[in-house]
Amino acid sequence: MTNLLKDLKQPAETSLNQELHKFAADLYPICRSITGNGIRETLSRIKGRIPLQIFEVPTGTQVFDWNVPKEWNIRDAYIAGPDGKRVVDFRECNLHVMNYSVPVHKTMPLSELKPHLFTIPEHPDWIPYRTSYYKEDWGFCLSHHQLMGLNDSEYEVCIDSTLQDGYLTYGECYLGGQSSDEVLISCHACHPSLANDNLSGLAVATFLAKYLSGKDLRYSYRFLFIPATIGAITWLARNRESAGRIRHGLVLTCIGDSGGFHYKKSRRGNAEVDRAAAHILRHSGESAEILEFSPYGYDERQYCSPGFNLPVGCLMRSVWGSFPEYHTSADNLDFIKPQQLAGSLLACAAILDVLENNRSYRNEFPYGEPQLGRRGLYGSIGGEACEDQILARLWVLNLSDGKHSLLDIAERSGILFSTISEAANLLCQKGLLSVVNNEHGEGAALGRSGTLPSQPGL
Amino acid sequence: MTNLLKDLKQPAETSLNQELHKFAADLYPICRSITGNGIRETLSRIKGRIPLQIFEVPTGTQVFDWNVPKEWNIRDAYIAGPDGKRVVDFRECNLHVMNYSVPVHKTMPLSELKPHLFTIPEHPDWIPYRTSYYKEDWGFCLSHHQLMGLNDSEYEVCIDSTLQDGYLTYGECYLGGQSSDEVLISCHACHPSLANDNLSGLAVATFLAKYLSGKDLRYSYRFLFIPATIGAITWLARNRESAGRIRHGLVLTCIGDSGGFHYKKSRRGNAEVDRAAAHILRHSGESAEILEFSPYGYDERQYCSPGFNLPVGCLMRSVWGSFPEYHTSADNLDFIKPQQLAGSLLACAAILDVLENNRSYRNEFPYGEPQLGRRGLYGSIGGEACEDQILARLWVLNLSDGKHSLLDIAERSGILFSTISEAANLLCQKGLLSVVNNEHGEGAALGRSGTLPSQPGL
Amino acid sequence: MTNLLKDLKQPAETSLNQELHKFAADLYPICRSITGNGIRETLSRIKGRIPLQIFEVPTGTQVFDWNVPKEWNIRDAYIAGPDGKRVVDFRECNLHVMNYSVPVHKTMPLSELKPHLFTIPEHPDWIPYRTSYYKEDWGFCLSHHQLMGLNDSEYEVCIDSTLQDGYLTYGECYLGGQSSDEVLISCHACHPSLANDNLSGLAVATFLAKYLSGKDLRYSYRFLFIPATIGAITWLARNRESAGRIRHGLVLTCIGDSGGFHYKKSRRGNAEVDRAAAHILRHSGESAEILEFSPYGYDERQYCSPGFNLPVGCLMRSVWGSFPEYHTSADNLDFIKPQQLAGSLLACAAILDVLENNRSYRNEFPYGEPQLGRRGLYGSIGGEACEDQILARLWVLNLSDGKHSLLDIAERSGILFSTISEAANLLCQKGLLSVVNNEHGEGAALGRSGTLPSQPGL
Repeated sequence: MTNLLKDLKQPAETSLNQELHKFAADLYPICRSITGNGIRETLSRIKGRIPLQIFEVPTGTQVFDWNVPKEWNIRDAYIAGPDGKRVVDFRECNLHVMNYSVPVHKTMPLSELKPHLFTIPEHPDWIPYRTSYYKEDWGFCLSHHQLMGLNDSEYEVCIDSTLQDGYLTYGECYLGGQSSDEVLISCHACHPSLANDNLSGLAVATFLAKYLSGKDLRYSYRFLFIPATIGAITWLARNRESAGRIRHGLVLTCIGDSGGFHYKKSRRGNAEVDRAAAHILRHSGESAEILEFSPYGYDERQYCSPGFNLPVGCLMRSVWGSFPEYHTSADNLDFIKPQQLAGSLLACAAILDVLENNRSYRNEFPYGEPQLGRRGLYGSIGGEACEDQILARLWVLNLSDGKHSLLDIAERSGILFSTISEAANLLCQKGLLSVVNNEHGEGAALGRSGTLPSQPGL
Repeated sequence: MTNLLKDLKQPAETSLNQELHKFAADLYPICRSITGNGIRETLSRIKGRIPLQIFEVPTGTQVFDWNVPKEWNIRDAYIAGPDGKRVVDFRECNLHVMNYSVPVHKTMPLSELKPHLFTIPEHPDWIPYRTSYYKEDWGFCLSHHQLMGLNDSEYEVCIDSTLQDGYLTYGECYLGGQSSDEVLISCHACHPSLANDNLSGLAVATFLAKYLSGKDLRYSYRFLFIPATIGAITWLARNRESAGRIRHGLVLTCIGDSGGFHYKKSRRGNAEVDRAAAHILRHSGESAEILEFSPYGYDERQYCSPGFNLPVGCLMRSVWGSFPEYHTSADNLDFIKPQQLAGSLLACAAILDVLENNRSYRNEFPYGEPQLGRRGLYGSIGGEACEDQILARLWVLNLSDGKHSLLDIAERSGILFSTISEAANLLCQKGLLSVVNNEHGEGAALGRSGTLPSQPGL
Repeated sequence: MTNLLKDLKQPAETSLNQELHKFAADLYPICRSITGNGIRETLSRIKGRIPLQIFEVPTGTQVFDWNVPKEWNIRDAYIAGPDGKRVVDFRECNLHVMNYSVPVHKTMPLSELKPHLFTIPEHPDWIPYRTSYYKEDWGFCLSHHQLMGLNDSEYEVCIDSTLQDGYLTYGECYLGGQSSDEVLISCHACHPSLANDNLSGLAVATFLAKYLSGKDLRYSYRFLFIPATIGAITWLARNRESAGRIRHGLVLTCIGDSGGFHYKKSRRGNAEVDRAAAHILRHSGESAEILEFSPYGYDERQYCSPGFNLPVGCLMRSVWGSFPEYHTSADNLDFIKPQQLAGSLLACAAILDVLENNRSYRNEFPYGEPQLGRRGLYGSIGGEACEDQILARLWVLNLSDGKHSLLDIAERSGILFSTISEAANLLCQKGLLSVVNNEHGEGAALGRSGTLPSQPGL
């Protein structure tokens, strides 16, 4: 029995907390975009920690309804006043430039400049994050205070960027398991200095991959570090066969702030990963909310498009778009917390632990209860209260008719999956229970039919 | 795309409000019954506004388990005191005579008269409405104050009515559409001077038929103006083939008072019309309640009898029987409101708009999202909030796998059907979407199997 | 139409109340166990009231995964102080000896005795109930006050019991009905002086069997009076064919205290008995709660083991284990109430009344409503309110399409089953309705497939 949680809980958690945050901090200054050297450098640092294969897809490559865009790189950008002093400076914060801005260098009055300036009047100290990937344009993002400080004079406007044929870059970390059926963990790596939205997912996914590598796993795991939308579409277009092997998946995003957990279900709504995540979060002791699928969000949009309809949900803490710091300079390293990053890592491990151990069993003594007492599985003094472990054994025996998985049993009994799973393990050892489905048979069947079985009726 | 709402909302609503109420007022004085000249005159006035075919079914005709009753007509009725003065006078209010009273003309003491008198002690100013269609009897309805004013003297009792072989009269307005599949709108026309219970339905149905005539409609529409119960049974017995073409239906009753909407579901409980009505009322901005089917009520009782089990619900404002004015002289022209009549007309049109436009589509680019930006279907500046129209496009694309109708999508997304429908229309124009089912194939299949598909599992 | 409730409600209830309690009081002093003369004597007294067949199964007989244990009998037991005075005396309360204690007779210091003593510190006046059926051991149960009164001197410890080859004894009362399909009523008879937990079930089951005997019943009834767990397992092992004929079943336990009703559903969760019990309890006028199945409890554990999965629920008042008196000397004759015992008997009869009368019918006039008025089934004066009886007739006619049982109709309409059933009976008499399924055909089909049809979709 795989037990992903046991090892993870044992090391001093404080050091794990700090390491996660430190990795996010290392990546923070890099100016990432959906293409270019920022994401390349980011992937290179991830590769320093886990086995990562990096792919470069040329500009113009058709990926379904899209084409891989030109590669964007930037060296410098600023708005300077008549005295030559920079009033907006890319070197201070890479959010100042609208991502994918085409090069520009001219002098213009404020009136001409203004349509290219973005601010957040309600948060006058914050810099917004804006992009223009698919329409050639340029712009600056600045604090509303900065904008208010500008006067009617002429400004020198400079964006020293390049937008030309090149590559879209993404990284894959594949960990082989007993089965060729796959679990997908996907996070986007295309946002510049934004901590919760981007770095929290990258850090947790990297540490999760490191933690799983070397374990004897039931499933194979594929970690994707990709630019949002175009990256997921590119990967799907190039990996339709691999996509067909995905049995469960999680998109990780905004997973480091101090908010409670949110899990957005896959389009299927009752996929095993949806139920596993709901079970773990419900028992997590933290505030947790399960959200219905919607086709707006992160890359689950692509994985759950109707042609794929993959069982991929999205794990978050605060929901993107719902907190004011989202897509602003306030989503910084203070906004993500060491303890929350580690808690998210643990939640991921717990969800994977359910998937790794969820199987159906058959009670070998289905007529009446088998005599647990003589096998040391029951208290010997009658009349006393029943412990949770014994209750778990009774539930597993009662529902193990080959039609109920351990997750079904955990849900119906209200007992934590890990307790149910331990009971099943013990009952197997005692010869009272046997596994129903052989892994590969199950996987193969699923692969052929293209659909996962839904929750058996209770 | 049919858009029933657009035109209806544009004219000055105030004049529509008044016209509806005025038509009800025109019909108010007529002494209707389930047969006879009252309903004949009523249908004749409706025919003045919409193309109406009037049917006369002879007394004695067997209609399922029933027979068409004798025709009842009344000229005058009164109770006169010893001084010859009328103390109860049909000419003042046609509710004074128990509907279908046989002729009587004699003088009798109050003690003999009393078993024939009906009052409402709790509302001593109101006159109740009573009928005795299937048991030959006579009676007077009067206010409790009137009853209290009677003394022990002899009274002249006169009901100048006839009950003899004749006809049951009803009207049909048929509006042909692209499909021979029908939508049924049914209202009863058999109550004398009762405004909410009877005239509100007649007015709204008449105006709705007028409004639909000349439109290019997907479905054919059949409006029935019939006596309650025996009329619906008579129509069903004579039109079993037409009944088999009914795909959706609404009974309209008590639809003009100032109360919030109530929709009583069809026996099926999840028919498309049930879901359409629930969706529209939930988004109507008015208080609205959805009621489960019960076999007591108006003519949905007949349409939903087990041999037919038609998908016909009942749209009301205050529920018949639940307001004290029901079946009394207080259900008068003041009790129904111009604005509420027009609001009900609009609600009917909105429900029909859902039915007209509800189809299943197939996303022609189902692998990942198609690139909406390059088609002008998506905002070009990334990082900003998503508008409702764009969200509707994403939902339609995501769920258009041929298994989800637009109503399914509206329900799952929580977005108004009309927004979803507009999104589908636009996506079709852009070549991203195609209609799945051909109209006649679908209709024909339904006709053969006799059952409508239930809501697809989400 | 069987009407189990009519006769039961007519006799003066007070005498029934007292008789039930008196029978429990008669059985109270007997020291029962899972084998031995205590249960034998108990069954013998039950046999004095109803036709009971008593079975003796030899020690060592294999019953599924278990073996029938040695037979235990006890004559006397005590702990005596240095002065020879009994400080704990079996003759005062048979709970003082841990049930199934092996013989012991020696003198020992308190320190050696203490591990064999059981008390309830939170309730220092109460004696706990403990057993050690499957591990050879001995012990005494005493009040915590008694324990506190012991000092460090030497005590004479004597348990004059025997544990040797013998028999396991149980009783069956079989009442044949029109169908060989069976209803199982099971209660345990293995607890010594415990009133609610054991005697309440025995008394109610005995009186229920007496009441049913001689009635013309649809189903055959099998009442089991058995030792808990091993008794149910023994019966199942010896009666696999009879078990296959069980269509509905109830385990009765803790059914005499002053608490509200609790019904624990069968493993199936929507078996007809589950729905019948829920319906009756919901309409009982008493507080009532429906509990989900769990594999911990009384003998429903065995009947609902996956190999059998019988539709057997458990009817209780206070739930075993949830009240402090449970498994203590405080579960005595004061704890059970004459009126509650009779109320439980009535609830059982009402549930069985549903099962006896629950059938599917077909409306012979399914097109529109049949004309009830001319058959005297409808009020003749139109415009007045509809009585419950008439409403029941309309519901039965509307849903009697052969797919809805009367229980379905009662649930959907919210009308009491007995009113629905009376309506169906009357409509049958009038020729408007006919029964759909023939009894034996249905039973036979069920027997072959081994599964009961689930609740038809509404």
